[in-house]
Amino acid sequence: MAERLRTSFRLTGLGREMAAEFAGTLILILFGVGVVAQVVAGGIGNHDSIAWAWGLGVTLGVYASATISGGHLNPAVTLALAVFKGFSWRKVVPFMGAQVAGAFVAALIVRWNYSEVLAKADPGHTLKTQGVFSTLPGNGTLPVSHWGALRDQVIGTAILLFLVLALTDLKNNPPLANLAPVVIGLLVVAIGMAWGTDAGYAINPARDFGPRLAEYLTGFGGAWRDQNHDLYFWVPIIGPLIGGLVGAGLYLVLIGNHLTDPEDAGDAAEPSRAAPQES
Amino acid sequence: MAERLRTSFRLTGLGREMAAEFAGTLILILFGVGVVAQVVAGGIGNHDSIAWAWGLGVTLGVYASATISGGHLNPAVTLALAVFKGFSWRKVVPFMGAQVAGAFVAALIVRWNYSEVLAKADPGHTLKTQGVFSTLPGNGTLPVSHWGALRDQVIGTAILLFLVLALTDLKNNPPLANLAPVVIGLLVVAIGMAWGTDAGYAINPARDFGPRLAEYLTGFGGAWRDQNHDLYFWVPIIGPLIGGLVGAGLYLVLIGNHLTDPEDAGDAAEPSRAAPQES
Amino acid sequence: MAERLRTSFRLTGLGREMAAEFAGTLILILFGVGVVAQVVAGGIGNHDSIAWAWGLGVTLGVYASATISGGHLNPAVTLALAVFKGFSWRKVVPFMGAQVAGAFVAALIVRWNYSEVLAKADPGHTLKTQGVFSTLPGNGTLPVSHWGALRDQVIGTAILLFLVLALTDLKNNPPLANLAPVVIGLLVVAIGMAWGTDAGYAINPARDFGPRLAEYLTGFGGAWRDQNHDLYFWVPIIGPLIGGLVGAGLYLVLIGNHLTDPEDAGDAAEPSRAAPQES
Amino acid sequence: MAERLRTSFRLTGLGREMAAEFAGTLILILFGVGVVAQVVAGGIGNHDSIAWAWGLGVTLGVYASATISGGHLNPAVTLALAVFKGFSWRKVVPFMGAQVAGAFVAALIVRWNYSEVLAKADPGHTLKTQGVFSTLPGNGTLPVSHWGALRDQVIGTAILLFLVLALTDLKNNPPLANLAPVVIGLLVVAIGMAWGTDAGYAINPARDFGPRLAEYLTGFGGAWRDQNHDLYFWVPIIGPLIGGLVGAGLYLVLIGNHLTDPEDAGDAAEPSRAAPQES
Repeated sequence: MAERLRTSFRLTGLGREMAAEFAGTLILILFGVGVVAQVVAGGIGNHDSIAWAWGLGVTLGVYASATISGGHLNPAVTLALAVFKGFSWRKVVPFMGAQVAGAFVAALIVRWNYSEVLAKADPGHTLKTQGVFSTLPGNGTLPVSHWGALRDQVIGTAILLFLVLALTDLKNNPPLANLAPVVIGLLVVAIGMAWGTDAGYAINPARDFGPRLAEYLTGFGGAWRDQNHDLYFWVPIIGPLIGGLVGAGLYLVLIGNHLTDPEDAGDAAEPSRAAPQES
Repeated sequence: MAERLRTSFRLTGLGREMAAEFAGTLILILFGVGVVAQVVAGGIGNHDSIAWAWGLGVTLGVYASATISGGHLNPAVTLALAVFKGFSWRKVVPFMGAQVAGAFVAALIVRWNYSEVLAKADPGHTLKTQGVFSTLPGNGTLPVSHWGALRDQVIGTAILLFLVLALTDLKNNPPLANLAPVVIGLLVVAIGMAWGTDAGYAINPARDFGPRLAEYLTGFGGAWRDQNHDLYFWVPIIGPLIGGLVGAGLYLVLIGNHLTDPEDAGDAAEPSRAAPQES
Repeated sequence: MAERLRTSFRLTGLGREMAAEFAGTLILILFGVGVVAQVVAGGIGNHDSIAWAWGLGVTLGVYASATISGGHLNPAVTLALAVFKGFSWRKVVPFMGAQVAGAFVAALIVRWNYSEVLAKADPGHTLKTQGVFSTLPGNGTLPVSHWGALRDQVIGTAILLFLVLALTDLKNNPPLANLAPVVIGLLVVAIGMAWGTDAGYAINPARDFGPRLAEYLTGFGGAWRDQNHDLYFWVPIIGPLIGGLVGAGLYLVLIGNHLTDPEDAGDAAEPSRAAPQES
Repeated sequence: MAERLRTSFRLTGLGREMAAEFAGTLILILFGVGVVAQVVAGGIGNHDSIAWAWGLGVTLGVYASATISGGHLNPAVTLALAVFKGFSWRKVVPFMGAQVAGAFVAALIVRWNYSEVLAKADPGHTLKTQGVFSTLPGNGTLPVSHWGALRDQVIGTAILLFLVLALTDLKNNPPLANLAPVVIGLLVVAIGMAWGTDAGYAINPARDFGPRLAEYLTGFGGAWRDQNHDLYFWVPIIGPLIGGLVGAGLYLVLIGNHLTDPEDAGDAAEPSRAAPQES
């Protein structure tokens, strides 16, 4: 059966890229929403666990998918690469669809697996565990307006895209030995530790919308609204899409434009160019 | 004497592979059960320490053994590789036996070294420290049924095997420079942080059964049962074996089948293919 | 527009190096001051989060800038490289200016993004949140004199420069595969965990002065003074500049002078020379 | 002056190796004893901070010294390499002396830098801060006998040496790209998290004796004794020396003897041999 599975199902073209984006985003959210469920509903771990597991989820999702699809896993990445890096516009909507679908299915799996502990921690499916799946302004407790959360999402995603471009630009100084996904994961760990107060660092429309839809369909009636009952779901969609463009553009203005030809790019046999020693 | 030790004892064939699996799993459990003993009985550290030390135990156990045996250290890995990757069926039972033996001996060493602090923390060898060695549904406190724990173990081990295949598939984008064991360890860190609520992330029949046998033989009469006195030991055996197959199969369906020839595999001189830049 | 942005703005020479130092230090401080704001004003995380995010900020800032400018991001690094490694004296002041400017702008961004939570946590802009931006002797609470803080900054920055030289010396045993920025980031994590008690491990004049100026201009009238109302801002400027020279000199005396030719330097195909095995 | 410093002082032979061991162990202890001082006397961080900073101190000390001396930094490593790996017996005592001297000087630096906070936390220089510098059975609070602590030190150092040999054996599967020091540091992180309850994981006679001497000379009259006023200092010297031999021997018996020729050793261009895929 294993042999038949292997030979009888072989995607090509955009289909296999969508499968990879689906799978990579699924993995990202299995860890990302999983860890928040474990902390909030299971009472195991703390905010730093959340930062680490989200970041490692990014690392692992990128490793799984990057060969086939580039491992975007985030509509803000896909859009910025289309605008600034020549990623095919024709693929933008399919990629985003696959990303949202992966996040949606992953959230359903977490919802199913942690159904008992979620029911025990929050039988009424209130705001208390809504934040397991989707983000809230000020994480549901701090006084941050929608405008403040939007600003935060623009800045946070700008940081993400600035550094994703820096870490994958062949003319720059990227990690070699196929280790860029590890450093990109550490980037998301750091964003979680430093940029998570105002809006829970969605920085990824698929990460937020997919799980939000999943919780809405499984008993969280308030999913689209924040702690003040205002519609909020659009903020972690619009903010990241804008922020990604800002960050990618700033990378080009401050760094990328001024780099010389890729022939100068380092190879594995030479140490990092950090703090070069001129004598 | 050192010279004699070196020259007079040289295993070959399956014997040396079993020695490697024994040693690798021993190392894994020396850290894995060791850290839980330190947290639960010694009162040093917290759940995140557990997640980190388990993950690093995997990294270190794989480094020690991978050259000789591939570093499975887990019957669920061995079974999945036999079904989907052509690992020799003839070696499956010997590998599993060596893994269980390594885990058993490691648990005895932890049991011995921490005998004083275990005795002080829990003189009656009750559920309180039973969880140092083997897993419980809902970690002994949350209301998770055997069915819920089985589901959790299937899902958790499916995540493990999906990503182990992704991270070691030469056609994919694996970490180079012999660093895959580090990333596989980080994978287990992330599983511990996100997927440990329902059943303590055994995700490895040898990890659970070996230490369970060791505690049973050293004073923990209730070792085979859970907090409700129901037989539980079979869940973290059956669940992972099934889950590994599910995860490995899904990897092939979503990613592995659609990868092209290994000649395209990256080499250390080119940066990761994460977020490739098409212009 | 993206195309126009890319082609119409291309710096060369010192200008592009200053842009890179500006960007790299900006990134460092977006994470560094950001995480302290999240912990102190947002109540999310703890001192270890601060250590991790500062260190990762260094890693990411160096990756962004090292190809163009060497990724100093710190006047103490720039000065020590000028004195001991032949870095052009003509560039020293421009580099330091760009570093301070990057830190200043980053602090303004954090100040803006976290304005609501800072206002809620500390409406009067007192010492309570002053430490988000700039350092204090004994972190504002422990009894450390200015002399003690100066001594601490000399030692802490000596450790930094000793190891930055060790980790980037081609004659030594540096991390390959362009991974030195990761290890340099871990160095800063460790300094934060071990050398942060007396003076908050500024170890970087730009890191301290830029954000201090930003907080002063945005409502923190006491920014230049410590908890005893004494002028303090000069300590984390002078201490690191001295300490960097001490550390770099000690590296040469203890290690660097005694290394043989770079031709012996390792390449990616051979494992680390750690604990070489002579038989 | 910098130029003169560079050219006029150039050690060779055993002298430069001793300088490297001195410097590497100094760095290790600057972080190791530093972090315990920060946690215990400064009240910043927790046991996990200690585990991380100790481990990173090992990584950094090895990077600084490995090219010249191999980066032992630990008499238990030096002894085991002499017995099992042909390390020159003539160098054993000089190496151990340099290691103890480095640890001693580093502890004096920590003692000096944290003198104010140590005085505030524990004016009488009692057991409360004695543990900053040297280890105690059961960390001074748990009921572990000298025999129990000795057993623990034998086991803990056996784990260390088993894995140090595994991670640096060219016939095995070591991390490439000069990254073994990172993984060896993670090994020490994991030992700190899992094997620190009974005796504070000295696992290194120089790490314990050097700082113990430093504290004795600076006001800690009880330095040589434990919480029961019994002489204890010999345990973390004898235990690690024995344990290192046990671990190195076990590595050979279980793994090392059965490895084939180094020509088979991996190179950076091929991914890790973890979980090889036979089809």
